[in-house]
Amino acid sequence: MIKRGVAVATLVGALLGAGVVLAGPSAVGERAFDAVDPFIGTGGEGHTYPGATVPFGMVQLSPDTRIQPRENGYDWAAGYRYEDETIVGFSHTHFSGTGHSDLGDFLVMPFTGDPGIERGDPDVPRSGYTSRYDHDTEHAEPGYYAVTLDDYRVRAELTTSARTGVHRYAFPAGEEARVLLDLRTSMYDYPGKILWSRLRQRADGTVTGFRETRGWAPGRQLYFAMRFSRPIQGHAFHNTETDILYRGFTTPAHDTPTRRAQIEGRQLVGTFDFGVLDAPLIVTVAISPVSEAGAIANLDAEVADFDFDRVRTAAKQEWIEALSVLDIDAPESDRRSAYTALYHTLLGPTLFMDADGRYRGPDNAVHQAEGFNHYSTFSLWDTYRALHPLLTLVQPEARNADFINSLVAHQRHSPYGILPVWSFHGLETWTMIGYHAVPVIADAWLKGLRGFDADAALDAMIASATYPEYDGLEQYMELGWVPIDEEVEAASKTLEYAYGDWTLARMAEGMGRTEVARDFDRRAAFWRNAFDPRTGFMRAKNRDGSFREPFDPTASGYGTDYTEGNAWQYSWYVPHDIAGLVDAHGGADALLAKLDEVFEADVDESIFDHMEDIVGLIGWYAHGNEPSHHVAYLYAHAGQPWRTQSRLKTIMDTQYADRPDGLAGNDDLGQMSAWYLFTALGFYPVAPGSGEYVIGRPFLPRASLHLPNGETFTIVAEGLDQGHGYIASATLNGQPLNRTFLRHDEIVAGGELRFVMQAEPNRAWPGEGAEAPYSLSTQ
Amino acid sequence: MIKRGVAVATLVGALLGAGVVLAGPSAVGERAFDAVDPFIGTGGEGHTYPGATVPFGMVQLSPDTRIQPRENGYDWAAGYRYEDETIVGFSHTHFSGTGHSDLGDFLVMPFTGDPGIERGDPDVPRSGYTSRYDHDTEHAEPGYYAVTLDDYRVRAELTTSARTGVHRYAFPAGEEARVLLDLRTSMYDYPGKILWSRLRQRADGTVTGFRETRGWAPGRQLYFAMRFSRPIQGHAFHNTETDILYRGFTTPAHDTPTRRAQIEGRQLVGTFDFGVLDAPLIVTVAISPVSEAGAIANLDAEVADFDFDRVRTAAKQEWIEALSVLDIDAPESDRRSAYTALYHTLLGPTLFMDADGRYRGPDNAVHQAEGFNHYSTFSLWDTYRALHPLLTLVQPEARNADFINSLVAHQRHSPYGILPVWSFHGLETWTMIGYHAVPVIADAWLKGLRGFDADAALDAMIASATYPEYDGLEQYMELGWVPIDEEVEAASKTLEYAYGDWTLARMAEGMGRTEVARDFDRRAAFWRNAFDPRTGFMRAKNRDGSFREPFDPTASGYGTDYTEGNAWQYSWYVPHDIAGLVDAHGGADALLAKLDEVFEADVDESIFDHMEDIVGLIGWYAHGNEPSHHVAYLYAHAGQPWRTQSRLKTIMDTQYADRPDGLAGNDDLGQMSAWYLFTALGFYPVAPGSGEYVIGRPFLPRASLHLPNGETFTIVAEGLDQGHGYIASATLNGQPLNRTFLRHDEIVAGGELRFVMQAEPNRAWPGEGAEAPYSLSTQ
Repeated sequence: MIKRGVAVATLVGALLGAGVVLAGPSAVGERAFDAVDPFIGTGGEGHTYPGATVPFGMVQLSPDTRIQPRENGYDWAAGYRYEDETIVGFSHTHFSGTGHSDLGDFLVMPFTGDPGIERGDPDVPRSGYTSRYDHDTEHAEPGYYAVTLDDYRVRAELTTSARTGVHRYAFPAGEEARVLLDLRTSMYDYPGKILWSRLRQRADGTVTGFRETRGWAPGRQLYFAMRFSRPIQGHAFHNTETDILYRGFTTPAHDTPTRRAQIEGRQLVGTFDFGVLDAPLIVTVAISPVSEAGAIANLDAEVADFDFDRVRTAAKQEWIEALSVLDIDAPESDRRSAYTALYHTLLGPTLFMDADGRYRGPDNAVHQAEGFNHYSTFSLWDTYRALHPLLTLVQPEARNADFINSLVAHQRHSPYGILPVWSFHGLETWTMIGYHAVPVIADAWLKGLRGFDADAALDAMIASATYPEYDGLEQYMELGWVPIDEEVEAASKTLEYAYGDWTLARMAEGMGRTEVARDFDRRAAFWRNAFDPRTGFMRAKNRDGSFREPFDPTASGYGTDYTEGNAWQYSWYVPHDIAGLVDAHGGADALLAKLDEVFEADVDESIFDHMEDIVGLIGWYAHGNEPSHHVAYLYAHAGQPWRTQSRLKTIMDTQYADRPDGLAGNDDLGQMSAWYLFTALGFYPVAPGSGEYVIGRPFLPRASLHLPNGETFTIVAEGLDQGHGYIASATLNGQPLNRTFLRHDEIVAGGELRFVMQAEPNRAWPGEGAEAPYSLSTQ
Repeated sequence: MIKRGVAVATLVGALLGAGVVLAGPSAVGERAFDAVDPFIGTGGEGHTYPGATVPFGMVQLSPDTRIQPRENGYDWAAGYRYEDETIVGFSHTHFSGTGHSDLGDFLVMPFTGDPGIERGDPDVPRSGYTSRYDHDTEHAEPGYYAVTLDDYRVRAELTTSARTGVHRYAFPAGEEARVLLDLRTSMYDYPGKILWSRLRQRADGTVTGFRETRGWAPGRQLYFAMRFSRPIQGHAFHNTETDILYRGFTTPAHDTPTRRAQIEGRQLVGTFDFGVLDAPLIVTVAISPVSEAGAIANLDAEVADFDFDRVRTAAKQEWIEALSVLDIDAPESDRRSAYTALYHTLLGPTLFMDADGRYRGPDNAVHQAEGFNHYSTFSLWDTYRALHPLLTLVQPEARNADFINSLVAHQRHSPYGILPVWSFHGLETWTMIGYHAVPVIADAWLKGLRGFDADAALDAMIASATYPEYDGLEQYMELGWVPIDEEVEAASKTLEYAYGDWTLARMAEGMGRTEVARDFDRRAAFWRNAFDPRTGFMRAKNRDGSFREPFDPTASGYGTDYTEGNAWQYSWYVPHDIAGLVDAHGGADALLAKLDEVFEADVDESIFDHMEDIVGLIGWYAHGNEPSHHVAYLYAHAGQPWRTQSRLKTIMDTQYADRPDGLAGNDDLGQMSAWYLFTALGFYPVAPGSGEYVIGRPFLPRASLHLPNGETFTIVAEGLDQGHGYIASATLNGQPLNRTFLRHDEIVAGGELRFVMQAEPNRAWPGEGAEAPYSLSTQ
């Protein structure tokens, strides 16, 4: 029932047929580019979008299939669902893989005839300007998307540069070309979301405007500038707000579109008429966080003309270069999954800065980036785990330094003086818990990344870890735990703070700031205050030191001890001290038994019906959400790496597939994809900050990482196939590797990691007395 | 029942008692300063405010006695009504004398105890934070206001610099000092007016924030920075909005004040605690149109310390200098009225620009003023008549040039490409009709004002007079009149466009742009298309050229032929062509008879109950609104100047008084006061652009204008008293003046205009064959 395979084949054919001549691309990158399928994740709960963007681009120009109200919006977090049969329009900002959502700014729809200015009911054809489409007409590749809007017989193509979306609309011959711009729509729609907006037609034909929304981020402002390749022959600006208590003299009545050059209000739509055209209409739309003038300057800087093909080719070149870091030999399906995963890890954080370096910060004020490019959209609770470690390996140092500089700039401009928790478009959303910008920065610095002011960064980390007004942190500092009688989800918070503290201590130690290191090493052991030896679970304590009763290890969600999880899922959250956890449980056997309980429990999935994000269940293990992501690797810490290998195969087989519904849960700005990539390569960063990757098992016969430093690190899996999934032996650069982890410096030095695979578990590797993966063993 | 006299006496005593030493003030200015009574106009319908400001200052810091909903807000347009017995707080922006209203930004209230964060019912003592006060404790002088808040026994004093309000609060001994900042209140309050707002406490103790409102002006943003002379010991930020459909993760619940450093939302209040103080608390609040950083910079530039007395003294010095342009010998009551009128003419336009020259324009974007100071608040339909002509005489050329440069800058940044219609805080409100920036610029240029780019200004004027989307202008250009079947209030619009066109033609002519002059001279005669010779009234035509029927010359208001008036009031609106009007009526006698009908009609005032602005009735003559303002002078054009003299006495006696309810109608940013001043001096600019002032009669025994060019022009009225109000004879510089007008260049040359007054009308002056005041005599 899913036609994506056909679509991709068609797409590749079309691309080759178009005879695009690429200037000096690497063959690896071209093959990688061809393997990416942007539809993966657009069905099910992946929440990815299929539209056009460049790596880490500010514009994500993509079709929206439905505009859903917030209460029913979860499935439409990225605007597009593969299951839908209609397209509302093409908007310029999208998240890739979020649970919570927003964006969908500046929705553009080409049309013919007079469908009106309301989008209508997607289930009722021609009830509004929404159009039907067929997947057979759809093409998607990195940086390019095309579809035919059946109701108007308009062929629509999309491509982008960093800040500019470019649309090419071919209208049916003889019909009048029209374009609608709807400032009312967004992901997670609800009445009152649009605080203010503006539409302006300038004398030179440029259309500019802005909107300010109270969605996921408070008071978010975004500006745009839009140009058409043909003169506007007429325009009408509408304000469809009906409940305006006071119109002043500036707000036209509901039923009175204006031909004046500007309109302001909260429910604005503009339509633009072009008459009958003899060539496709090109529409260029640049966005800006700063101002309409900023958007115009971005447009001038990036796409001053209307050369769609040039922009598309440039986007393709960017993708080829970005994707060429990984050279994979594997069956086509695995290559498709792996390169699409790589593609998904290169979508965020996203650029958030005008061409002149100005951006809007968490104080909603305009700042000038000095010496770095400013990025936003930091889904840190998710991405500190594997995405940022992956980007350290596959992206240039300068870009990784930009991410850190952006985090530190956020802290500098934050009204609260702290690093972002979950930020996008410069603004703090306070989503999820912890201060996971701390491990991102620490891990990068400890891996040798420079290009940012480490002292300022460490100070920013300390400020974030000591802001008393944040989520029970005052009590955590006072008591050693977050008290559940004063703060919700206290067990999760205590655990995540302790891990963050450990990473902070490591960086401080490395910088010679030993007093800071000592303070935070003390806090890193606070995870023990959440461990209940009686039940073997992590639990939340009251202020008086007693655990909260009654206790239900299956309970999850707001009001419980945990954040997006239950005791079964959160009790493994001591990434920095698995040895301590083993001890706390009374030894490896107890831990292993409990791990098996996790994976083998017979769980009634309806227990999580109230928790949208807890999906992808294998027993209690929930691969669709991040707290589980390191758990399968813990067998290795407990001396049974073959159990990790076995669990990973189950996860890879059941949680990923190369089809639209091929992601088991939200991709979370690439974290799910980064997990896939690391795991496919054969190792995973269980504890960012440790400099180590725990070896699982490889899933690709051969893969080479072309590292930013010019070295190449190749992983070979001899004898790998579906029936041979266990590691028989491993060598690193020809020498036996008798441990279950790799060090970061071993990878960046380049070389070859060679596995020999076998059909049965090999209990003899790495052997008795092998060095265990990193553990702090806090006491 | 009005205790103002007492208050003023107390005030003067307090001032003298304070022993303020003034550095080199002119004695004239000091006496003028002492004569000003800021309470005049704060009762009745004057809509002035009594608080502190500097000439044309950006901050108007004044008490608000009630916050009224928009539908009942007319009487509280300036926030304060003398009749009220409570004060809600002190806010930083106010209009002086408007009908429509807005502003009231950043309301601050000192308090003790715990009155809560709602303002309560002003009629129920202690039902909220609103406090009672007594006029006996009130002092007001230019740049300073003081009152005692009885409910808290707090002595509150206010003063300002250009962009900064300074508060001094003396709390009762031993009580904890607290201050509330309410971002919810404004003039013309209504649900949903606050689009967005922010409150932030910075690490250095500065409190900043902004709010964005949809009031009279769309999407108006204003920022502030606030400092306290003592450390904040604690703060609480509240969001009292209850109907938030979606809070995201950023909006605290209604009942949960936050101690975090920032809050955003639509209904914000902050409270700040200072503990028990041993000295008054000084609060400094700077505003900015640009950003919080701009407000901080303004505060640093203007009031970096907490020296209340220094700021007060500087404000007083500014006022003494500004008021010293007029030296009046007259009875105390007349001096009080005249100097207060002068004071009221120096309140607007208001500075709207940060210390670094940045401001927000009609596109809501930030611009940099290059070579001029940017002003806004242009109530042009009112102020082109007499206020701007007065300012040309009493303000430095540079300031007048700033006004013109600000108008032209507005046009340059206008989305519509036109000069302001009615603008404030940079934004277009589309209030009233016409394009009366045109006569303001033309009159100033024709009077020799330079310091602006005349070609750019003329182009801006032409653009404004030809924008087809504006109020029937497209049809006016096509037909020669605004058709009432397509556009409301068409007669008034036709007439006002024609006058504006005439002024544009005069300036074009003066600049040698003869083709432009010819085009607009043709349009200047379009007033004839509104004249109905059958009824002798100005009326609105349909597109087909017929007058709209039925016709009721008493009908006024929306939907009629007229704007804020009826046929009796609007039929005199040909300021540039009274001779033509005389002709159209069939001669002077017919016109005189109709003029008498205007003043002597027996009018049931309830006919205007639906029109708030039509007040101050003498027959149909409505002095409280501007369309009547030139009418009494028209007898002079028709050869009976003694009738003008008689009518003026009636108007002066009945429409002005030196008490709070002493203004018959809204002061309209100084237009009512400018009428008073010109008329008191003895002449009035019936047709700005003509370079002439029509002589009425003097009301002051002696008055000297110290002109910006250094010359002095003195008007002497020999024998003037209540019983001697007619001109017997006039001399200019000793030579007989046998005409009923003065030329502008005669005034600016300096000299003496001397009248001899007599008890009875003198029908022999200026005599047969005397030159008549300016008339175009369009044909």
